Amino acid sequence: MANYSTLSKQELASLQKELEEKYNSFKARNLSLNMARGKPGADQLDLSMELLNSVNDKTGYKAEDGTDCRNYGILDGIPECKKLFAEILGVDEKNVIIGGNSSLNLMFDYIAQCMTNGCGDTPWAKLDKIKFLCPAPGYDRHFGILDYFGIEMLTVPMLDNGPDLKVVDELIKDSSVKGMFCVPKYSNPEGKTYSDEVVEHLASMKPAAKDFRIIWDNAYCVHHINDNHDKLLNIFDVCEKYGTQDRIFEVVSTSKITFPGAGVSALAASDNNIQMIKKRMNMQTIGADKLNQLRHAKYLKDANGVDEYMKKHAEILAPKFKAVLDAFDKEFSDLGIAKWTKPNGGYFISLDVMDGCAKEVVRLCKEAGVALTPAGATFPYGKDPHDKNIRIAPSFPPVAELELAVELLCICVKLASVNKLLEA
Amino acid sequence: MANYSTLSKQELASLQKELEEKYNSFKARNLSLNMARGKPGADQLDLSMELLNSVNDKTGYKAEDGTDCRNYGILDGIPECKKLFAEILGVDEKNVIIGGNSSLNLMFDYIAQCMTNGCGDTPWAKLDKIKFLCPAPGYDRHFGILDYFGIEMLTVPMLDNGPDLKVVDELIKDSSVKGMFCVPKYSNPEGKTYSDEVVEHLASMKPAAKDFRIIWDNAYCVHHINDNHDKLLNIFDVCEKYGTQDRIFEVVSTSKITFPGAGVSALAASDNNIQMIKKRMNMQTIGADKLNQLRHAKYLKDANGVDEYMKKHAEILAPKFKAVLDAFDKEFSDLGIAKWTKPNGGYFISLDVMDGCAKEVVRLCKEAGVALTPAGATFPYGKDPHDKNIRIAPSFPPVAELELAVELLCICVKLASVNKLLEA
Repeated sequence: MANYSTLSKQELASLQKELEEKYNSFKARNLSLNMARGKPGADQLDLSMELLNSVNDKTGYKAEDGTDCRNYGILDGIPECKKLFAEILGVDEKNVIIGGNSSLNLMFDYIAQCMTNGCGDTPWAKLDKIKFLCPAPGYDRHFGILDYFGIEMLTVPMLDNGPDLKVVDELIKDSSVKGMFCVPKYSNPEGKTYSDEVVEHLASMKPAAKDFRIIWDNAYCVHHINDNHDKLLNIFDVCEKYGTQDRIFEVVSTSKITFPGAGVSALAASDNNIQMIKKRMNMQTIGADKLNQLRHAKYLKDANGVDEYMKKHAEILAPKFKAVLDAFDKEFSDLGIAKWTKPNGGYFISLDVMDGCAKEVVRLCKEAGVALTPAGATFPYGKDPHDKNIRIAPSFPPVAELELAVELLCICVKLASVNKLLEA
Repeated sequence: MANYSTLSKQELASLQKELEEKYNSFKARNLSLNMARGKPGADQLDLSMELLNSVNDKTGYKAEDGTDCRNYGILDGIPECKKLFAEILGVDEKNVIIGGNSSLNLMFDYIAQCMTNGCGDTPWAKLDKIKFLCPAPGYDRHFGILDYFGIEMLTVPMLDNGPDLKVVDELIKDSSVKGMFCVPKYSNPEGKTYSDEVVEHLASMKPAAKDFRIIWDNAYCVHHINDNHDKLLNIFDVCEKYGTQDRIFEVVSTSKITFPGAGVSALAASDNNIQMIKKRMNMQTIGADKLNQLRHAKYLKDANGVDEYMKKHAEILAPKFKAVLDAFDKEFSDLGIAKWTKPNGGYFISLDVMDGCAKEVVRLCKEAGVALTPAGATFPYGKDPHDKNIRIAPSFPPVAELELAVELLCICVKLASVNKLLEA
C-alpha cells in the first residue's frame, strides 16, 4: 500500500469505506480485551508460587541473623534482602532500604518528605513555587505524584538516548526546579535506555537548586525481553566522581519479578539521604513486612538467581511483544501514519500515530471493546501536545487475544488517519 | 513494712544498705532481660502459623470476588478483608480502607496529608503554628509523628476515665490546636478505657479549628486479658448524632492478633475523609499487599473468629500480667512509694514511682541487665514533668524471666525511693 499522504481524496474515501466495514464487523463481535496496563499475565505469576511456601515451616520464619521475621524489629530490611537488592543495583548494603509492596510508595513518600521536611535545605512546602522536569512520554503515576503535591511539571522531550539535555540544561538554571523523574532503563512507555553520555551529564550538571533530586525509577533494570540487553551506567558510580550522590533517589521492586500486588520494593540513596529517610521512617512505620522480604530473599537468592528467573518471564513476554511488532510492521510499513519503538526490555511499546489522532484511535478501540491506556496519559497533566502518543501494554492478554486486539488497533489507526486526511 | 515516709533517717539508711546488697547480688548474675517493648512472645506468634498456608495452592490466591490477589488492582482492600475490619470496628465497609503491616504508617500518612494537602481546609504546612493535644502518659510513637512534623504538643493529663476534659475544653479554644491523639481502649501505657461520657464529649465538643482531627488509635480494641471486658462506645455512632464524623480518623491492626511484623492494618473514616484519603492513596501506592489481606481474612474469618482467637492470646498473657501485679502487690503495698494500674486488656502496666525517681529506677534496672522503656517516653518530648512514670511491658519474656526481672525492678524502685528520701 502507498503512503497515505500520496493518496487522492477519492482513494482515501474508498479506503475509509473499506476500513469502516472492517471496523464495524469487529464491533459486532462484542470483544472485551485489554492492552491498557503493564500487568503481568497469570502465567508469569504462576512462576513464583513456590515463593509462598518458603517461610511456613517451624523455623522458616527466621532471618539469617536469627531475627524472628514474624515479630517487630528491623526498620530498613533484613540483611539477606538488603544484600539481594544491593547486588542488583550495584550499591553498598548500607545504602539500601527495603520498602513494602510498592516502589511508587517509596517515591511518593520521598517527595512528601521533601515537601514537609526538606532534603537538606528548606522544606519545599515552605517555598512559593516548586517545579520538576518530566521527560515525556513518561509514566503517568510519576506525574500524578507531582500533581498531587502541586508541583509544576515541565515537559522535557525524550530523544533516542534519553531526555533532551539542552532543554534540561536550560530549565535547571531556575532554582525553583527541584528535580526530575527518570525511568532510565527500558523507559515507560518507549523502552529506551539512557546512554552513558546522558547518565554522565545528569550526574555532573549543576542545577541552580542545591537540593535538586533525580528520582531514578529503575523499575525495569533486569526486565529484558530478548538477548540484546541494554546497558545502563550505575549512576551512583558516576555521581561519586562528581560528589553528587545526594542528588539520586533510586527505586526498584519485584513487582514484575514475582508478584505485582505482593512484592518487595527497595530504595538506594547516599549516606546523607539514607540518614534523613531513616529518621522519617522511624516515625512512620515499624518497617516493611519481614516475612515477605524473607520469602523473596530465599526464593530469588541473588542477582544471578534473578537473571535466570527473568529469562522465564522473557520467554512468556517475547511472543507478546512480537505479536504487536509483527502486526505493526505488516500493517503500517510505508503508510507514513505510524512510528513505534522496538524495545529490548520493559513492559511497553510506544506508538506514535499522526498528529491529532491518538485520542480518536483510543476512542475507536474502546468502542469496539479494546481498552488502551488513555491518550495523553504519557504526558504531564494528561496533555500530549501533539495528541499522537499511545502506550501499548502487551503483557497481560494471552497471545491469541493480543493478536485480535492489535488487528483492531491497526484498523483504528488507519481509519483515524484517513478521517484526518479527509478533513484536511 | 511501714510506709517509707514514716521511717527515720537511721531506718532508711539501714534499709538502703540491705537493698544495695540485694541489688548488687542481682547485678553479679549478669542478667539480660527485657520489659521494654509491647512485643508478643514467640508462643503467641506460633498461634498464627497456619495463616501462612492459606493462599498457597493453585487457586488459593483468589479473593471471593475472583480477584487474583497476586496481581495489580484494588486500592482500598479486598472485599472480605474490608468486611472483617468493618465488623470489628462496627462501621460500614465503604468507610474502611485496608493498609499495610503498620497502623502507625496510616496515622503518619494522614498527618502528612493534613500537612501538605489539608483535610478540607488550608494545608497545615501553610500555617504558622500547629498544635496537638496529647493525653499523657501516652504512646511515644504518636508523639514522634507530631515532633517529626514540627507540631507543638500540649500535654493533657489522663484521669481514670480518659483525658481531662476541662483541660481539653480550654485548649481547643485555640484555632491552632488541630487535633488530638487517643488510645481509647486499654490505653498505652495505662490500660484505661475512655468512659461513655468522655467519648460523648469528644464527639460533641466544638473546637475552634474546623478541621480538628481525633486520631483514634484503637490498637487494643479486642485485646482483653481477662473476662472483665472494658466497653468502649463506637465513636462514629456518637459523632453521627452531632454530625461530627469528619473529626475521627480511626486505625486498628492485626499486629497483636497475628504477626506484629507481617500483619494487616485498617483505617475507618467518614465518607468525606475516605474520599480525600483515596485521592492521595491513588497517587501514593498500588494498594496494600492483597495476598496478606487474603491470608488474614481466610484465617480470622469474622469478628467472632477474632474474639475466639484473642482468648488464646489472653491465656498466654494473663499469667505474665499476674506475675508483675502479684509482685507489685506483695512488694509495694503500704510502702507509699508506688502506684500502678491493673488493666483488663492491652499490653502494658503503668507504674508511677515517687516523683523524681523514674529515670533512676530505669537506670538501676539497666545496669543490672533489665531493659525498661526509657523514663519520660510516655510524655511529649520525652519529658515526664514529675519523672515518675514507667511503662512495664510484660508480654515478651517467658514468665520465669519476667518474675526475675520484676523482682529486680521492685528492688530498684525501693532503692531509688530510699535514696531520694535520704537526700531530702
